[in-house]
Amino acid sequence: DPKLKIFALNSNKPLAEKIAKAVGVELGKTSVDRFRDGEIRINIEESIRGDEVYIIQSTSAPVNDNLMEMLIMIDALKRASAKTINIVIPYYGYARQDRKARSREPITAKLVANMIERAGATRIIALDLHAAQIQGFFDIPLDHLMGAPLLADHFIERGLNENAVVVSPDHGGVTRARKLAEFLKAPIAIIDKRRPRANVAEVMNIIGEVKGKRCIMIDDMIDTAGTITLGAQALIDAGATEVYASCTHPVLSGPAIERIQNSPIKELIVTDSIQLPEEKKIDKITSISVGPLIGEAIRLIHEDKPVSPLFNNRFS
Amino acid sequence: DPKLKIFALNSNKPLAEKIAKAVGVELGKTSVDRFRDGEIRINIEESIRGDEVYIIQSTSAPVNDNLMEMLIMIDALKRASAKTINIVIPYYGYARQDRKARSREPITAKLVANMIERAGATRIIALDLHAAQIQGFFDIPLDHLMGAPLLADHFIERGLNENAVVVSPDHGGVTRARKLAEFLKAPIAIIDKRRPRANVAEVMNIIGEVKGKRCIMIDDMIDTAGTITLGAQALIDAGATEVYASCTHPVLSGPAIERIQNSPIKELIVTDSIQLPEEKKIDKITSISVGPLIGEAIRLIHEDKPVSPLFNNRFS
Ligand SMILES: Nc1ncnc2c1ncn2[C@@H]1O[C@H](COP(=O)(O)O)[C@@H](O)[C@H]1O
Ligand SMILES: Nc1ncnc2c1ncn2[C@@H]1O[C@H](COP(=O)(O)O)[C@@H](O)[C@H]1O
Repeated sequence: DPKLKIFALNSNKPLAEKIAKAVGVELGKTSVDRFRDGEIRINIEESIRGDEVYIIQSTSAPVNDNLMEMLIMIDALKRASAKTINIVIPYYGYARQDRKARSREPITAKLVANMIERAGATRIIALDLHAAQIQGFFDIPLDHLMGAPLLADHFIERGLNENAVVVSPDHGGVTRARKLAEFLKAPIAIIDKRRPRANVAEVMNIIGEVKGKRCIMIDDMIDTAGTITLGAQALIDAGATEVYASCTHPVLSGPAIERIQNSPIKELIVTDSIQLPEEKKIDKITSISVGPLIGEAIRLIHEDKPVSPLFNNRFS
Repeated sequence: DPKLKIFALNSNKPLAEKIAKAVGVELGKTSVDRFRDGEIRINIEESIRGDEVYIIQSTSAPVNDNLMEMLIMIDALKRASAKTINIVIPYYGYARQDRKARSREPITAKLVANMIERAGATRIIALDLHAAQIQGFFDIPLDHLMGAPLLADHFIERGLNENAVVVSPDHGGVTRARKLAEFLKAPIAIIDKRRPRANVAEVMNIIGEVKGKRCIMIDDMIDTAGTITLGAQALIDAGATEVYASCTHPVLSGPAIERIQNSPIKELIVTDSIQLPEEKKIDKITSISVGPLIGEAIRLIHEDKPVSPLFNNRFS
């Protein structure tokens, strides 16, 4: 019988531990470090011949190092005769480069998909891809997990769904807001940024009712936090009583932490798809783990069962 | 008529400038920098539709960043309809991981070749690959250039070929030493490290005549400089009058510079296949440029002529 083995690379070991615990296995023995010149050295320290192997790796910063670790690990597993090579990518880096917005741009999200497939992966498990179309960049099976139900549970447990409105920070995120609103049985609103004329400041136009309401903003990722913090201020200006923000992927680069600290956002709820360095673990940020969710998905895949009921049950 | 265009990425712009000068063109306009989260952003700032494009990029440290720059640039050029995408790789990183020396090791040099091909490269121009077999990792044309003739010219111009013996620092490098010796019309010697019994220090056994001679050591790359500096001491102990060292690729990581400073090596001659940071530019190191050599190779390829006469003429 092929064994189920889970290996952690370096981007997010705490999450890998939680996933292994949820599945009920120990993490596989491996060392992933560097030669003196900075090249990645991987040693898989147990046999994996004929096994079903899962790799846990987010391609968060340092994105190129984390991506190469993943590719080299896939190469090593393939040459060591793993039966299947399943790549769990809680955060998929380069996802925003998913189309040519201008001439002569790369489509790096597709390049990355090609690299992962060419290296020898046989299945992908992803979480809240920036665009659902990235699923089609792969020709191997891909399971697409959602963070929204977990975020919803968190809000409901604390009674924050009372008198709430779910707000999309831009028109691109309405579908995502719609989904969270469904879980919370709350209405939605949209912040529609418009530049009335060229060289005139943007106007934050709020579509929907927020006055006297608790606003719960949701996005797939928060990077420099410009959109979310300006949006939060616009909601307060429009009479919202308080503003919560949430996202699956806390990228939080550059001025993000400072902006969040100085914003009217009361609390930011994120997941551990990206491991936060100590300096980004501030009081305003609450992290909930996707470990049990991913663990359950791995268990279902390993038992050859569909992953979708994980989410469909939510609506029953 | 398809135009010849040369683009530099970030690993070695000074060499790219020299190559462009040798070919007689300006470097193409492009910007290769980072988004706030560290992801690579590439903008090609001129049309390249239907052109024959050459990219100059060494995959030296930071190897993963430099490799990803190359792959993303290839993706962008392919989608912008370049006629050919020729990748000049003066230093090919991960070349030492070119076989499974132990169970469950990756073969990263092959993985990298697969990535470059999958991204869309149409031709490779490489210089002194760590193993010539890496040529076979590619299924697209590859021109393999040699640094030895340039190093030989340098030694001959200074009369250092007089009373010289070319020394290979290990038995793996004899073919390379043999080639330099041919150019210099000098004999060869080999340092044959042996561990007489387990847990006993290595013995430096010198095969060939070095007493009263000027020794010229040659290797393809010098990384931590352990082999070359211990070898130099062994040569002096065996009666060599002076020791020069040379290599194509000055990797020079970790303790390399300190070891070279403290060694009996009189001078180390390297090429600019890898750009040296300021702190590694010490008096003992002389750098000669492969810019004219690579420029000539590009000219020949662009005119559909074979590159081999570049080297065959050397023997006439
Ligand atoms: N890492 C990144 N940081 C910021 N912007 C990016 C990044 N990657 C791609 N982009 C740009 O973000 C835009 C797409 O973002 P979106 O509209 O949110 O899908 C494109 O114009 C990309 O050029
Ligand atoms: N970047 C590196 N630095 C040091 N050793 C390496 C590196 N990459 C691979 N190796 C090891 O070097 C050995 C091959 O070196 P060589 O015998 O010189 O071809 C293999 O055992 C590799 O595991």
